[in-house]
Amino acid sequence: MATGKINVSVENIFPLIKKFLYSDHEIFLRELISNATDATLKLKHLTSIGEAKVEYGNPIIEVKVDKDNKRIHIIDQGIGMTEEEVKKYINEVAFSGAEEFLDKYKDAGKEAGIIGHFGLGFYSAFMVAEKVEIISKSYQDAPAVHWTCDGSPEFSIETSDKKERGTEIILHVAEDSTEFLDDSKIRGLLVKYNKFMPIPIKFGTKTETLPKPEGAKEDEPAPTQVVDNIINNPNPAWTKQPTDLTDEDYKSFYRELYPMQFEEPLFHIHLNVDYPFNLTGILYFPKLTNDLNIQKDRIQLYQNQVFVTDNVEGIVPEFLTMLRGVIDSPDIPLNVSRSYLQADGAVKKISSYITRKVADKLSSLFKNNREDFEQKWNDIKVVIEYGMLSEEKFFEKAESFALYPTVDGKYYTFEELEAKIKDNQTDKDEKLVVLYASDTEAQHSYIETAQAKGYEVLLMDSPIVPHLLQKLETTKEKLSFVRVDADHIDNLIKKEDTAISKLSDEEKEQLKTELEEVISSKGYTIQLEAMDSQASPFIITEPEFMRRMKEMQRTGGGMFGMGNMPDMYNLIVNTNHELVGEILNTKTAKKRERLINQSLDLARLSKGLLKGEELTKFIARSYEMIK
Amino acid sequence: MATGKINVSVENIFPLIKKFLYSDHEIFLRELISNATDATLKLKHLTSIGEAKVEYGNPIIEVKVDKDNKRIHIIDQGIGMTEEEVKKYINEVAFSGAEEFLDKYKDAGKEAGIIGHFGLGFYSAFMVAEKVEIISKSYQDAPAVHWTCDGSPEFSIETSDKKERGTEIILHVAEDSTEFLDDSKIRGLLVKYNKFMPIPIKFGTKTETLPKPEGAKEDEPAPTQVVDNIINNPNPAWTKQPTDLTDEDYKSFYRELYPMQFEEPLFHIHLNVDYPFNLTGILYFPKLTNDLNIQKDRIQLYQNQVFVTDNVEGIVPEFLTMLRGVIDSPDIPLNVSRSYLQADGAVKKISSYITRKVADKLSSLFKNNREDFEQKWNDIKVVIEYGMLSEEKFFEKAESFALYPTVDGKYYTFEELEAKIKDNQTDKDEKLVVLYASDTEAQHSYIETAQAKGYEVLLMDSPIVPHLLQKLETTKEKLSFVRVDADHIDNLIKKEDTAISKLSDEEKEQLKTELEEVISSKGYTIQLEAMDSQASPFIITEPEFMRRMKEMQRTGGGMFGMGNMPDMYNLIVNTNHELVGEILNTKTAKKRERLINQSLDLARLSKGLLKGEELTKFIARSYEMIK
Repeated sequence: MATGKINVSVENIFPLIKKFLYSDHEIFLRELISNATDATLKLKHLTSIGEAKVEYGNPIIEVKVDKDNKRIHIIDQGIGMTEEEVKKYINEVAFSGAEEFLDKYKDAGKEAGIIGHFGLGFYSAFMVAEKVEIISKSYQDAPAVHWTCDGSPEFSIETSDKKERGTEIILHVAEDSTEFLDDSKIRGLLVKYNKFMPIPIKFGTKTETLPKPEGAKEDEPAPTQVVDNIINNPNPAWTKQPTDLTDEDYKSFYRELYPMQFEEPLFHIHLNVDYPFNLTGILYFPKLTNDLNIQKDRIQLYQNQVFVTDNVEGIVPEFLTMLRGVIDSPDIPLNVSRSYLQADGAVKKISSYITRKVADKLSSLFKNNREDFEQKWNDIKVVIEYGMLSEEKFFEKAESFALYPTVDGKYYTFEELEAKIKDNQTDKDEKLVVLYASDTEAQHSYIETAQAKGYEVLLMDSPIVPHLLQKLETTKEKLSFVRVDADHIDNLIKKEDTAISKLSDEEKEQLKTELEEVISSKGYTIQLEAMDSQASPFIITEPEFMRRMKEMQRTGGGMFGMGNMPDMYNLIVNTNHELVGEILNTKTAKKRERLINQSLDLARLSKGLLKGEELTKFIARSYEMIK
Repeated sequence: MATGKINVSVENIFPLIKKFLYSDHEIFLRELISNATDATLKLKHLTSIGEAKVEYGNPIIEVKVDKDNKRIHIIDQGIGMTEEEVKKYINEVAFSGAEEFLDKYKDAGKEAGIIGHFGLGFYSAFMVAEKVEIISKSYQDAPAVHWTCDGSPEFSIETSDKKERGTEIILHVAEDSTEFLDDSKIRGLLVKYNKFMPIPIKFGTKTETLPKPEGAKEDEPAPTQVVDNIINNPNPAWTKQPTDLTDEDYKSFYRELYPMQFEEPLFHIHLNVDYPFNLTGILYFPKLTNDLNIQKDRIQLYQNQVFVTDNVEGIVPEFLTMLRGVIDSPDIPLNVSRSYLQADGAVKKISSYITRKVADKLSSLFKNNREDFEQKWNDIKVVIEYGMLSEEKFFEKAESFALYPTVDGKYYTFEELEAKIKDNQTDKDEKLVVLYASDTEAQHSYIETAQAKGYEVLLMDSPIVPHLLQKLETTKEKLSFVRVDADHIDNLIKKEDTAISKLSDEEKEQLKTELEEVISSKGYTIQLEAMDSQASPFIITEPEFMRRMKEMQRTGGGMFGMGNMPDMYNLIVNTNHELVGEILNTKTAKKRERLINQSLDLARLSKGLLKGEELTKFIARSYEMIK
């Protein structure tokens, strides 16, 4: 048996690294700026512990585009490299300087915010450059060094006369990547990836207007000066302590994140945890609108202030992806698939931490200013209701702040609602019956009838309401939700009362026959009921169970095949109403038919079912009648 | 100046290859099966050209899971490797055997369908295995070889007593990957990635029922036999010639692709091109439903019969992503970002080829069986209309097959429509006015009025219709689309006729004052018109321009801010109607007010604007009136 060592052939792997290291070529700039930032932060750390005897100063990173010579320069004032270090860190692919530094200085690296991981980032330069130069001067007393490589594994190295401490990377942009020589392209990338990185990044200059000197003339133009154009905010709000931030600071950071959003966020949640994982961030509840563009401004994910992605699927629980803001955590593995991510223990903990923080914030908002919370309810309910449905822990916590609004603008917690309606809305089987409407306009007549009985009617109008009601009914005992048009008022909440009918059994039999003659073909199940004589003569109802199952299927779920079932309606005829008595007493078949049809049309109108040709005919008939 | 060679450190890069080669660990099985397939196809090629003097036979690939020993075996009967070849292809990472083979046999590789690209695929085994063995016997006369590696760069190699030609890979599954020891997991992966690969893949066995022997007793059970369970269909429909396939073959392939789809596809498009790029495939137009799950069964992308992804964004034009089916092309770069993909020349050509083929198919379907095409129109219109909006070339081609259905079920091409309505629907400015409705029920009374004038009314009810009309109006000359409820009938298509009013100017003045007194607060712009005395007395209209802009903004586009403007309605009062005369002649203010209100309510009802409390009151009043 022979043994040996697997050989990674540099000629073969190098093109792969260049081509496939990142699927997005634009990443090169993020990687090089991250390296420059690391070099600067390392110097900061070494000066702070007295190991580097140089002045740290106020270092910046500069990016320059030289379109004529097809070059991009990235210049930092950081730690720099000696010739030995260039050989060690650059010539040996996958030998990460950052990792070695972190090893040596242990936890200091975490504090210092070192970004680099594998030392491969530098090679991403070759995704866009045909030749790369490094000119570097170390903070140590050593000559500057000049390294050049044309993308083959061959490099050359010599000394340089660079005087200033730090590293300059020069990219000779390849023919197929000249798009990166556009100022606006580079500015766009800097804003996208580096907007909140910790070292100031200069890209060009800008002209600032200064205050007019005292005694200046009215029409004299204000003086101006040309200053460095700094792309980034090195100290974004989420890196600060909540106690150091005002409400206005949070709002202004929101505008910084989403400059195209004109609506202010409803409220924010500051995330800050360092055990068992590191995570900081600020989440905002936006005012949800019907605007289709809403999904464009999403939660942004950072790692040590470097933008990574705005796809937080798998990291943030799905019901919170409607939120906005930033999350910054070095602990989220990124080079793995989303499905793997969801199974990852650390990510699961992050996700449940975020859920808990959101629940706690909602709970404290509710307790501290209920009135304000009620006003915001309509804008946040979809998120909360969706969370209640999808996350069991959130469902439990939401018990204390989830609101159930009534059609007339009162807001109850479930506990309050129960206390309020228990006496009047418990049926003969001791079930608590909660009445609700999904549309105050369309269900107006039904709501009015229920309110006349002293019943509370909730307004539940989110698309996922059927699922939520289903969940509430199965979680709580002896509870049922019934929509106001699911049955006639005496049946919605069944009590012991027996109704007295004005009609005899024979009369009822006769009435039913007459009604069926006229409307049997229209698909309604006729139901005679002895109701209050002041209630409507004809009422159309839609049984709760079928309707809810159909709705559930439309939004995903429910029983298979229900979505395609025809709608089912009952026609309730109030045998105690004067008009119904009149129908019974009308001897002319034609006149009776007209009475029945007109009554049915009015009942259908009330339920929104009179449409098209039938409505046109009804209107024409009605114009005749008022003439 | 010194020069040197960049060194890729194997100790450092090897863990990276193992961990980050693919973001999805499950890919390992696809890669190993691809290697086994390549090994078999290479042998097929060499025997076919007489270079390998062995029997090709009917080779299969076998996958076995040995849960007890935590192993997965992948066994092929292909070309095999000698010790030299193992050293060359396995020990040298990124030395692609497939590429060398392709170089040597030039275009033969393309025909033979060789999959491998970089020789890295094998190493993906280490994403799930802590130790990997290769036991291989070449088709050449050489001893079998046994290679073992525990994931460090160290390997051992020795001879083996394997007798059968081919290669066996043994994965010793790592602790964190035991999920891959589940039969159902492996079966799922094989079905997902290898369902249509060209060499049969055996995974376990299954029991087949045989026909009963002649003379068998009634209650005697049919005999059974245990046979290999072959996971894949090595000859999927898209690899065949369209002339060799029947309609039923296409439908049965659709069921093979989407076993959970019960609806048959409407029609298919067979793609087949080999210059300037290679692409085969079959696209299906599904019956689009409102089912939210529809997006789950999407177009699948293959490369040489290996499943790659079902995200074809950027490859297929967006309007065709609603289609289903497969596309197989080795020419689509996959390790690049979607935005890069969209800019890629080859991909652009693929996208426009697909667009053209779809347009040609639609055109021939229309020509060959118009009746059938008309019946399918409602199911395919959204795709076609969206294509017309988003792809200029498709818009031009669609001129010959895009249909404009009328509310009474006739279907015109634009040319036919123009010929049909030119005489009657050209207004006094020589503009062709096309009337349309978006909802036959809701706009019934308006449609009826237009039809009474002999006008054709189109039914345009897709959500993107406002955008399409806008495009048609700007592309064609002297054309305007007007919805039937945009104005009263005499104004929809303005002709030279002068209307005679029954009312004098003073009477009109008086009427207007009386009307405004009652309904000024309700936000309608009152417009007195001398119309046919048989037309409705009150009509509510909604001007086209505002409404269309608002609709456009709701579906993305239109003018900024329009979406939030209030709806705008006009109240047309027909001065020639008897009822309007009656209003004018009624002296009692209260009675007049009742007449005006009831008429207004009926007009609002006709336009769907009478809702909520007002509707409830209207109904109560109407019950009173019929009693």
